[in-house]
Amino acid sequence: MALLNDDRLFPAEETTRAIARRLYDEIRGLPIVSPHGHTQAGWFARNQPFPDPVALFVQPDHYVFRMLYSQGISLEELEIGRPTINNPRKVWRLFASHYHLFRGTPTRLWLDYAFQESFGLTERLSEATADHYYDVIEAKLATPDFLPRALYERFKIEVMTTTDSALDSLADHTAIRESGWKGRILPTFRPDSVVDPEFPNFLENVGSLGALTGEDTSTWRGYLRALQSRRAAFKALGATASDHGHPTALTEDLGDTSAASLFEQVINGKAYAADLEIFRGQMLTEMARMSVEDGLVMQIHPGSVRNHNAQIFARYGCDMGADIPQATGYVEQLRPMLNRFGNEKNLTVILFTLDETTYSRELAPLAGHYPCLKLGPPWWFHDSPEGMMRFREMVTETAGFYNTVGFNDDTRALLSIPARHDVARRSDAAFLARLVAEHRIDEDEAAELAQELTVGLVRKAYKL
Amino acid sequence: MALLNDDRLFPAEETTRAIARRLYDEIRGLPIVSPHGHTQAGWFARNQPFPDPVALFVQPDHYVFRMLYSQGISLEELEIGRPTINNPRKVWRLFASHYHLFRGTPTRLWLDYAFQESFGLTERLSEATADHYYDVIEAKLATPDFLPRALYERFKIEVMTTTDSALDSLADHTAIRESGWKGRILPTFRPDSVVDPEFPNFLENVGSLGALTGEDTSTWRGYLRALQSRRAAFKALGATASDHGHPTALTEDLGDTSAASLFEQVINGKAYAADLEIFRGQMLTEMARMSVEDGLVMQIHPGSVRNHNAQIFARYGCDMGADIPQATGYVEQLRPMLNRFGNEKNLTVILFTLDETTYSRELAPLAGHYPCLKLGPPWWFHDSPEGMMRFREMVTETAGFYNTVGFNDDTRALLSIPARHDVARRSDAAFLARLVAEHRIDEDEAAELAQELTVGLVRKAYKL
Amino acid sequence: MALLNDDRLFPAEETTRAIARRLYDEIRGLPIVSPHGHTQAGWFARNQPFPDPVALFVQPDHYVFRMLYSQGISLEELEIGRPTINNPRKVWRLFASHYHLFRGTPTRLWLDYAFQESFGLTERLSEATADHYYDVIEAKLATPDFLPRALYERFKIEVMTTTDSALDSLADHTAIRESGWKGRILPTFRPDSVVDPEFPNFLENVGSLGALTGEDTSTWRGYLRALQSRRAAFKALGATASDHGHPTALTEDLGDTSAASLFEQVINGKAYAADLEIFRGQMLTEMARMSVEDGLVMQIHPGSVRNHNAQIFARYGCDMGADIPQATGYVEQLRPMLNRFGNEKNLTVILFTLDETTYSRELAPLAGHYPCLKLGPPWWFHDSPEGMMRFREMVTETAGFYNTVGFNDDTRALLSIPARHDVARRSDAAFLARLVAEHRIDEDEAAELAQELTVGLVRKAYKL
Repeated sequence: MALLNDDRLFPAEETTRAIARRLYDEIRGLPIVSPHGHTQAGWFARNQPFPDPVALFVQPDHYVFRMLYSQGISLEELEIGRPTINNPRKVWRLFASHYHLFRGTPTRLWLDYAFQESFGLTERLSEATADHYYDVIEAKLATPDFLPRALYERFKIEVMTTTDSALDSLADHTAIRESGWKGRILPTFRPDSVVDPEFPNFLENVGSLGALTGEDTSTWRGYLRALQSRRAAFKALGATASDHGHPTALTEDLGDTSAASLFEQVINGKAYAADLEIFRGQMLTEMARMSVEDGLVMQIHPGSVRNHNAQIFARYGCDMGADIPQATGYVEQLRPMLNRFGNEKNLTVILFTLDETTYSRELAPLAGHYPCLKLGPPWWFHDSPEGMMRFREMVTETAGFYNTVGFNDDTRALLSIPARHDVARRSDAAFLARLVAEHRIDEDEAAELAQELTVGLVRKAYKL
Repeated sequence: MALLNDDRLFPAEETTRAIARRLYDEIRGLPIVSPHGHTQAGWFARNQPFPDPVALFVQPDHYVFRMLYSQGISLEELEIGRPTINNPRKVWRLFASHYHLFRGTPTRLWLDYAFQESFGLTERLSEATADHYYDVIEAKLATPDFLPRALYERFKIEVMTTTDSALDSLADHTAIRESGWKGRILPTFRPDSVVDPEFPNFLENVGSLGALTGEDTSTWRGYLRALQSRRAAFKALGATASDHGHPTALTEDLGDTSAASLFEQVINGKAYAADLEIFRGQMLTEMARMSVEDGLVMQIHPGSVRNHNAQIFARYGCDMGADIPQATGYVEQLRPMLNRFGNEKNLTVILFTLDETTYSRELAPLAGHYPCLKLGPPWWFHDSPEGMMRFREMVTETAGFYNTVGFNDDTRALLSIPARHDVARRSDAAFLARLVAEHRIDEDEAAELAQELTVGLVRKAYKL
Repeated sequence: MALLNDDRLFPAEETTRAIARRLYDEIRGLPIVSPHGHTQAGWFARNQPFPDPVALFVQPDHYVFRMLYSQGISLEELEIGRPTINNPRKVWRLFASHYHLFRGTPTRLWLDYAFQESFGLTERLSEATADHYYDVIEAKLATPDFLPRALYERFKIEVMTTTDSALDSLADHTAIRESGWKGRILPTFRPDSVVDPEFPNFLENVGSLGALTGEDTSTWRGYLRALQSRRAAFKALGATASDHGHPTALTEDLGDTSAASLFEQVINGKAYAADLEIFRGQMLTEMARMSVEDGLVMQIHPGSVRNHNAQIFARYGCDMGADIPQATGYVEQLRPMLNRFGNEKNLTVILFTLDETTYSRELAPLAGHYPCLKLGPPWWFHDSPEGMMRFREMVTETAGFYNTVGFNDDTRALLSIPARHDVARRSDAAFLARLVAEHRIDEDEAAELAQELTVGLVRKAYKL
């Protein structure tokens, strides 16, 4: 018995499946290039063991507990948000006895992969096997093989980035560098907390930015210099990219005088709500300008309505599985930035979306024209077998493969990294196999593309 | 020769088809649970024969006559909207000679099923076979086997609901109960006519609501009590659900004073158009509040632009095939209600949509988080093999199967009920078979899911 | 070795593929009916050879150069926009060495078809084969077999239309008629330049319209008469259709007095931006009115944001691959026109979209009801195998096949015409084959539908 079948995610039709197998066999062993994610640099700086199965699989993973919550299990019962878990075995049993809820979801695929490949478990997780799972996982976590650096190496990770606040001291990244360990863990510059006036504690954050950089961030000039300074600090520790999580994809190009004047209103708390959105838009264009100068690749992740559930937010804070996508437009929104920098060859802007309707309508046409634009892989709710297939089906015919950038695992769960890359490699192999079987491309081309989608495009687009 | 192939709607690929067959074989004979539809309680109260094939298949079915109308056949020729049909055979021949228009539509699948399974017809309907069809159907309709109650029993219906105006006396439902017949026909509380100020004769309806309940519906308090009273009356006759067909999914949470004041404006005809929409939104939240108290499951069916064709509406009235879906948002729209009641365990809100773009972008993320939310099956134009497949493909990975509620036949056509459930069962078997063939779930899990999708989830979600 | 496999674009599954082959075999040899495109009447009037491979395949085809541009190749290097090409072989080599960018795109399918079927080339285009390609193509272009009229005949074109400005003298069309050549090249009336106040040189164009027709186009009456007069002139040369490329699908029905007054504001440059959109909307309804009178079929192509890249537009002008689709609504937008003319039997309005979300949500429900509406095939970015499949999957169940109008090649590239029709025929065969394999329709029905989708529906809808 096994949790994983060797042919999983390949089409059932035999000719196509055989092609998919051949394509996959050539890429399954390639190293993992992980240009965007949310693991913690501290894990690798300190290299301490994970305490128990719940701390590893349940507590940090909003994919897991949002589903349980949707079915009437309270976050209290799951001990979400507690610094230490009182009764991890009880929580694990609760999770195990509801494992059927994940049927048909990517979470199920990721977990099964980790259970079998990392822990050697082969019977399905259920109420009956809960304790066995708990014991096996807990025992292994205590061994040196399951320390963060050992996992990094076992997973054959070539390079992995974290996502870090512009205000982060980067002490963990510095510690990794100074430790002599060979793993490549790089920071990514995420300035939302200091460029989005609606971010919690924005004004305080801008003050901290000034303190951290020695610039006077109460002036537009000083504020911009401070941001440039932080970008340089990230770059010095190996960062090749920035990341921008705005509510919308709006960009603006106000001109320097208007921008300075808007900044003044914002920083004095005198701007209207609509102006805050304009300010965010202006800052995306400023970031693009800095990218043209310093070469950081710019990632834009728009369209998530954060903390939709007011009661959950009040009690538990952010990232509690209550972020909901909304319709997102790109055509008019990106125009101001593209009019300024769209034809720059020394700029790479990678666009993401939670609104799949934009794949064929807006994103592929934009990326199929503008030299600076590339399309990020399916994001978040769409980082799944069906989601990946829709992405390829809706994007490829207009933007081709070469305006995409390979896979992002985008995860907080270290154990899910190889699982997620495996799903992506299999999904790409399945898509390419169909094109071959339908004689739209030849198999030698598909094999070359499979390499590109796995390691080639990501290294190039992210400059890794 | 036959109209129906045993493998219809199963994927052609042999491995997958074999799995689909096995899954379907276990559910094909399960009873029909029909929690939402538009058949008439009067049929079962009076148990009279249907007069002729046209009255059964053409006149009540806007799916049928809208297609004929779109191809230049007038509603006059089809004798639509007449109390009695002058020349049913002529209308039948007209329909039969245009039967090719339905190729590739679910209407064709439903009709062929009824023709073969209920009437034993096996040659395709066409101009040539029109009279044969007419004669066979007409003759059978006159037999006791084709009386409404006999059909209910032959179709193995376990329970079936109607959809009834809040102003309905429920006399037919009472008559069914008092008749001693064992069939379970339950009402559903549909208050659109008394909560939507733009509903025809709204003010008069609110007056009738007062008269029916003995409450003073000219006051906000009395109006709310009257609605509660009607909900109780429906519940007393077995209703387990309410249904709300609003133009949008907007909800509001005004607070009691503002709500009362808005009601006063509305009831005095002094509200602006925008306020009418706000009032509808407030009433959805009021209905949710009552649901928390009385336990009625709340169905929301938003997004249909009713009576788009002004000439047809002026001459023929509602439900003439001229309702057109429009883009529908849920994220900000549902927030006021969800902020109040989204985390209530004693509330079930089932969301429907005519805008498939919301499946993966809004509905699955919402239902995959909020305990009160479930997703209704593909509705109306999307209640079809392709529509069902898109629903499962776009919803499952984020919301799973267990945040869905099985199938609704949602039909005005009694004969189409088993046909529609059969299409749903086959489509579910086909989808599950693909997941098994691609090794995403195991076959024992798929078999369990097939049961859940057919009878388990619907009984639980609708409290039947 | 060959570029084209006989089974290309057919599903890999053997049963379905065998059905697809049979269906395709019956339609592959049917004549080409091309009711909408952008070839030049002058080619056929003058019947001169195409100068070189770049002038044929690269320079006029924005599908080709937009992809190259998106990957950092400048339009200068490609010699785009030059009256004569200085170094066509160098451009060709540049194109050839980037041919891999087109993997998975329809452009690749179209080009390979032309390379093999028209030029007998069978090795894949690449840097290595660039010169061989160049030499072969250049040599053949100099032969009589590759003159425009010879190609028209070799491609078995039954009738083909061009798209012509309302201000076009139609001299080329007249010359073709007078030449005695039997080819049927018909004009299509495209009045954007004289009905859209935001069209470059609008006021001047309206003046030219007056001069051309002898009407006083400074008055509403004279303006309308001038448009009617041009429609009549087009009709006299065989035109059966008009075409309207508006930013949105908005229609208006202002009433004559308001319309005349709005025209006066527009023509005197005194209208606000919002009024310009209303004027365009009014003109669509005026065009519909004229269509009811003169029988020209009305095509509406809305939703393209033209010239999105300001720098490219400033330097190179229109049609440079920088048009981007945007979200497009039809339900409320078309209502004014449909309220006036929606039930007219003597009117055909063919709707197109770049927003695929409207297929199942708006367009199929509209076309499945209104007698005047038909749905055009997938347009532009969606004129591709995946795009065609999505169109059929999302449209057929609600609108059927008979509310669609067959294929448009819509191309500026003469050599791509048979290639594009071949892709459409194969895609239709593939879709129909699946319906047969899944027992949704019978094979004799599919064969009949294949004929309809290839020649029947287009001849009827476009009155050809």
